[in-house]
Amino acid sequence: MNGAESLIRTLVAGGVDTCFTNPGTSEMHLVAALDRVSEMRCVLGLFEGVVTGAADGYARITGRPACTLVHLGPGLANGIANLHNAKRAQVPLINLVGEHPEYHLKFDAPLTSDIEGIARPYSHWLRTSRSAADVGRDAAESIRAAANHPGYISTLVVPADVAWSDGGVVAPKSTIEKAALPPSANIERAAAMLRSGLPTALMITGDGLYGDGLRAAGRIAAATKAKLLSPYPFARMERGAGRVNVQRLPYVPDQAIELLKEFRQLILVGAGAPASYFAYPGKGALLTQPDTTTFAMTSPSENSAGSLIALSEALGLNVRSEILIQSVERPTAPSGEISLQGLAATVAALLPENAIVADEAMTSGRGMMAASRGAAPHDWLANTGGSIGIALPLAVGAAVAAPDRRVLCLTADGSSMYTLQALWTMAREGLNVTSVVFANRAYAVLQWEYSGLGVGTPSPRAADLFSIGRPDIDWVAMGKSMGVPSSRATTLDMFGDLLRKSFATEGPSLIEISL
Amino acid sequence: MNGAESLIRTLVAGGVDTCFTNPGTSEMHLVAALDRVSEMRCVLGLFEGVVTGAADGYARITGRPACTLVHLGPGLANGIANLHNAKRAQVPLINLVGEHPEYHLKFDAPLTSDIEGIARPYSHWLRTSRSAADVGRDAAESIRAAANHPGYISTLVVPADVAWSDGGVVAPKSTIEKAALPPSANIERAAAMLRSGLPTALMITGDGLYGDGLRAAGRIAAATKAKLLSPYPFARMERGAGRVNVQRLPYVPDQAIELLKEFRQLILVGAGAPASYFAYPGKGALLTQPDTTTFAMTSPSENSAGSLIALSEALGLNVRSEILIQSVERPTAPSGEISLQGLAATVAALLPENAIVADEAMTSGRGMMAASRGAAPHDWLANTGGSIGIALPLAVGAAVAAPDRRVLCLTADGSSMYTLQALWTMAREGLNVTSVVFANRAYAVLQWEYSGLGVGTPSPRAADLFSIGRPDIDWVAMGKSMGVPSSRATTLDMFGDLLRKSFATEGPSLIEISL
Repeated sequence: MNGAESLIRTLVAGGVDTCFTNPGTSEMHLVAALDRVSEMRCVLGLFEGVVTGAADGYARITGRPACTLVHLGPGLANGIANLHNAKRAQVPLINLVGEHPEYHLKFDAPLTSDIEGIARPYSHWLRTSRSAADVGRDAAESIRAAANHPGYISTLVVPADVAWSDGGVVAPKSTIEKAALPPSANIERAAAMLRSGLPTALMITGDGLYGDGLRAAGRIAAATKAKLLSPYPFARMERGAGRVNVQRLPYVPDQAIELLKEFRQLILVGAGAPASYFAYPGKGALLTQPDTTTFAMTSPSENSAGSLIALSEALGLNVRSEILIQSVERPTAPSGEISLQGLAATVAALLPENAIVADEAMTSGRGMMAASRGAAPHDWLANTGGSIGIALPLAVGAAVAAPDRRVLCLTADGSSMYTLQALWTMAREGLNVTSVVFANRAYAVLQWEYSGLGVGTPSPRAADLFSIGRPDIDWVAMGKSMGVPSSRATTLDMFGDLLRKSFATEGPSLIEISL
Repeated sequence: MNGAESLIRTLVAGGVDTCFTNPGTSEMHLVAALDRVSEMRCVLGLFEGVVTGAADGYARITGRPACTLVHLGPGLANGIANLHNAKRAQVPLINLVGEHPEYHLKFDAPLTSDIEGIARPYSHWLRTSRSAADVGRDAAESIRAAANHPGYISTLVVPADVAWSDGGVVAPKSTIEKAALPPSANIERAAAMLRSGLPTALMITGDGLYGDGLRAAGRIAAATKAKLLSPYPFARMERGAGRVNVQRLPYVPDQAIELLKEFRQLILVGAGAPASYFAYPGKGALLTQPDTTTFAMTSPSENSAGSLIALSEALGLNVRSEILIQSVERPTAPSGEISLQGLAATVAALLPENAIVADEAMTSGRGMMAASRGAAPHDWLANTGGSIGIALPLAVGAAVAAPDRRVLCLTADGSSMYTLQALWTMAREGLNVTSVVFANRAYAVLQWEYSGLGVGTPSPRAADLFSIGRPDIDWVAMGKSMGVPSSRATTLDMFGDLLRKSFATEGPSLIEISL
């Protein structure tokens, strides 16, 4: 068995059975191994930002790492922006990167580059495999490093001769360490804070936003009147009717400050102290009041879900205790002219049970979460790292992970243009993704930030750099060019009809909303 | 004057007057400064691979650096693959990258990243500016570092508070060092090799492939019968009727070995020893015969053009000496069914005088250079670093640099999908670019490499990873979706008609060839 095959078989043995890829010549023996190991599903992306973003989406839904397979340094480089988002999402992810054999590097062939240098800022674990005999063991270690709680990025660089040489050994599955709980003193202090009667909020992230952790938070909220909040960026949140409602911190600093003002105490569960996304001249970054007591009960690397359960137990609660759940609030789909409020109500009215929403409609979609609070239960995936171009790839990964669920991708023209190749993968794989493109023909957030930064009103030269009209992008033609059935909605009624039809039809579709 | 304005004014004073950009919130004060300094032309790209690739194309044509302005670490990361190509092209290029103020970094806001770590593998000069008073001087140094021969990449990281604070100082233009010639002993040894009468080739790259350097090479070839060769990757080559003909080394190793076999001596002028692009099991990388004497007359950082002139003088030649030039060989445009040979002949027949060809049609375009050897004089820009997705951005940059020249972009479906956002910039700026997309629905080079590596014939699972059909991409719809007039040629006659029409029409157009 050559190194390549031992690598792929080790991954499969370790539970990694999905590979998002765009390979090149130096990865051909790995492709041949993928060919032989049919347990590994391969999904081709036509750009590596799709590949890494899809691996992120896959991990957010399954909790397990997918692997990527990319071509040398430049292939990895193209995937970095979405690795930035994946790192911030704290998902497990394994990058396989081809490399020239060591004896070839001295010729400085055109594609030679410092792969480890490119990988380092985004890899918690990084290794270049040295021989066919080692690469199986390296793969097992890459899985363990990635799968440790809460989820990390491993990058394994595989020289072509390591892949093609004989002597590969399949390594057994490594043991994954259990996620660490915070010290019990932390839990007790948080419990005391909650018992104090002072206005208190929990700022929750990671696995505290779904499953048992979220339900424990709902019991805490019911028993103590504590408010449940999440940071603006989060990887995955369970929400909708019958679920525990968590309010997302607004992106706009003044709105976030206003929301946080009422709390005298803030308990951080896996989250950092709330700070503004960007710096603004003459303004502080912290969004809490100076007299707010902020306590980090659970650090980002500790077990958020487990610590919420422990906290609920410290408060004397158990699975039979009352839980604060969201009631059904399902509006009827509205009629008439397009408005952001109307679009949000339409989504809330029609969202199918157990849908997955991948959300990157930064300005146009701001009302979506409020409107869909009481919609059919669903998962919400947000942009975690602020690098735009994540929603379409996330949707690909989520749909591969959960073929029986409908994925609704709320995206915008600015962000979609970053990784629009994802549409092609949706068409090829027949993924159940409904992409809604809010085409406001602008980096609208920048128009707003320009004034917010006190720079004044943009003159035509500056305004031109925020405008992505002139020419307008025709998203219907764009979607169709990559094989995705695409339509344009010019009224709320049309939007509702197109959404209903898309939700009822297997495979992908795209709806452009011209704003 | 704030730091941002001193930075932009310093760049303009230093001859940097074109900015390819995709800015974000942290760059808003730089945008405001761009707004005030009207001498700087700003060109928006909807993805940073377009931004950096366009800066490369601009530099290849003008010899001067453009600047890029990108958003934090992820924005830079998206531009890295084409920075890899730019580094290999040895062009001058200045990246401006926004950053959070230092006091904001401790909050680890979502977009916080190790910008210097991301930039390091592709930056010859790298600095984070520390104050508004420094940033002008930093900019002047970034220009000097980039503009030194043969051309380097500078990256200047600009924290938002450095940009917005008062106290900016415009720095005067720095002196650029003259390019170093190789030691005279090298020139003399090369002259002696040429006088020996042994079959000899010069392997030329950099500025030896155009202008005075290339003409000196033509005189050397006429006087000594030496063959003029270039590596497969090169940044810019002047060619066509009346120009000195240089033969490009083939990509396919066996063909390159065959071509090099006849030479007993090889003189390297800025090029490395010829080696295969990739490693193959059981095959060496060097493409020359063991008994070939290879001599590096000019190192990559030395002056290739100057050393060719010095070599011609050492051989007793001067500007009145005979020069070996290419005769006119302009075929008539052929008729009939699409064939690669027919497409190449059509391009050769119709290529306008002084055109710029940006070439990335890796498999479909392999006959293009041979066919157009005696076409109207033109410049040819190739993929220098092997990272695909360079041709469309290169064409943007070349067209911005030379608005009076027609740019012909020969690209393919696989490579175009990497940076297709460039089409939008072509439409917005009304650039005179004719993009020909060879749509073979495959990573055809990988189909070929798979067998070449001895892996065998790909089974359907592997073949699927080389196929970019299923669904076929409709390039006519794609081009139109971004505002570029687009058509499909299904015969050579149609291709000829569409090319003629495009060359005669201001602004961009796209022609899809279905193969």
